[in-house]
Amino acid sequence: MDDGGSRPLDTLNQSRNKTVMVDLKNGTRYVGKLRAFDIHINTVLADAEEHYNGELKRKLGTVFIRGDTITIISPA
Amino acid sequence: MDDGGSRPLDTLNQSRNKTVMVDLKNGTRYVGKLRAFDIHINTVLADAEEHYNGELKRKLGTVFIRGDTITIISPA
Amino acid sequence: MDDGGSRPLDTLNQSRNKTVMVDLKNGTRYVGKLRAFDIHINTVLADAEEHYNGELKRKLGTVFIRGDTITIISPA
Amino acid sequence: MDDGGSRPLDTLNQSRNKTVMVDLKNGTRYVGKLRAFDIHINTVLADAEEHYNGELKRKLGTVFIRGDTITIISPA
Amino acid sequence: MDDGGSRPLDTLNQSRNKTVMVDLKNGTRYVGKLRAFDIHINTVLADAEEHYNGELKRKLGTVFIRGDTITIISPA
Amino acid sequence: MDDGGSRPLDTLNQSRNKTVMVDLKNGTRYVGKLRAFDIHINTVLADAEEHYNGELKRKLGTVFIRGDTITIISPA
Amino acid sequence: MDDGGSRPLDTLNQSRNKTVMVDLKNGTRYVGKLRAFDIHINTVLADAEEHYNGELKRKLGTVFIRGDTITIISPA
Repeated sequence: MDDGGSRPLDTLNQSRNKTVMVDLKNGTRYVGKLRAFDIHINTVLADAEEHYNGELKRKLGTVFIRGDTITIISPA
Repeated sequence: MDDGGSRPLDTLNQSRNKTVMVDLKNGTRYVGKLRAFDIHINTVLADAEEHYNGELKRKLGTVFIRGDTITIISPA
Repeated sequence: MDDGGSRPLDTLNQSRNKTVMVDLKNGTRYVGKLRAFDIHINTVLADAEEHYNGELKRKLGTVFIRGDTITIISPA
Repeated sequence: MDDGGSRPLDTLNQSRNKTVMVDLKNGTRYVGKLRAFDIHINTVLADAEEHYNGELKRKLGTVFIRGDTITIISPA
Repeated sequence: MDDGGSRPLDTLNQSRNKTVMVDLKNGTRYVGKLRAFDIHINTVLADAEEHYNGELKRKLGTVFIRGDTITIISPA
Repeated sequence: MDDGGSRPLDTLNQSRNKTVMVDLKNGTRYVGKLRAFDIHINTVLADAEEHYNGELKRKLGTVFIRGDTITIISPA
Repeated sequence: MDDGGSRPLDTLNQSRNKTVMVDLKNGTRYVGKLRAFDIHINTVLADAEEHYNGELKRKLGTVFIRGDTITIISPA
């Protein structure tokens, strides 16, 4: 995730198909390849893993995450 | 749920009539066939089961889930 | 609630005048005949009962439920 | 509150000047005559009483209730 | 606050320059003269007092209250 | 903060460059000179102090406060 | 972050490429260089650190922060 973009969504766009970490308001973390997002920050990850309290909970294939539940997105 | 779509709702669309897992903010999970969704992520599952803490609580027929209560949707 | 509709509100529409269960974010459940709903999922039930923790709390006549407090609607 | 209306606000309209019960997300209940409401479900009751845990807390004259704090409205 | 208005904001308008009580979602109560409000129910009181658990906490001059934090407004 | 304005934002405008107290939903209080605000009540204070439980926690220079986290703004 | 701007986003703009502190509603703090923000206050920091309870938790490269989770932004 290069930080050259001047708008936040440009920055997300530079992470497409790269591995990112998505933290939710409820403390869950998803790690996977960023496949898609929209202006609501609804986000799709591929090859995703679910973590909680630093522990791997589940391996998921593709996961759709509703934007309003997300706090941050960052390269893994 | 193939991850070839470039927009998050395209990804959901590829899961129509397939079995998905829908997690809610309150910790409840619904598993069923994805019949319908809209831009608010209001979602309808058929042949749905309700799970809580990994335990099957109820079998429901069709269930309408209000979008703003959803955290993730993923293939079951 | 037949699941043939391709949009979530079509599915709700098929439950008009049938008995449904409406679960709220605060854990309360209302069971009654679905008389009306709108795009915000504001919902009106007739002959409604209020349940909490699996226990019947009150019989209400008609009840108007504000949409943003609802998690799911399902046939009773 | 007759349930003949096909839209939720029609149902509320049929309760104008009748006694209704309004439950809030924080567990407070107001009982009074329904004088006014709008599309946000902002609601005005006259001759209102405030109840909490089944106990009368205060008698209020007229009360304006902000819609987003309401869970249900039902005939008292 | 006469209850003759047919819209909720008409009712608030009739309380301009009269003493009202404003209850917040966090349990704080403000009592003061209603000077201004808008469609979001952002509200300005003059000669305001802050109460919590039935106890006077502070005297404030004028106070601007963000509408989305308000549950009810009623004559004091 | 003179209370002569008939709209809530007029009242805020009269406090520009004066010291105000801003209370947040999480109990934090900021005290500083009101430099800017917008219709969402996003607010900028200069020479700001952060208080919690009546105790000074930090001195900040300028602080941008997101509007939806604010409960009240009042002259300090 | 000079406070000469008359609109809150002007103030944020003056902090571009400077180090800021971003506090979230859940108590997490991010410190990094402000690269981008938008009207929702979605924010991108570069060379970001995550702190909780005054303790450094992680070093992140670039981080996208969803605006609605932010309480304040201030120069570090």
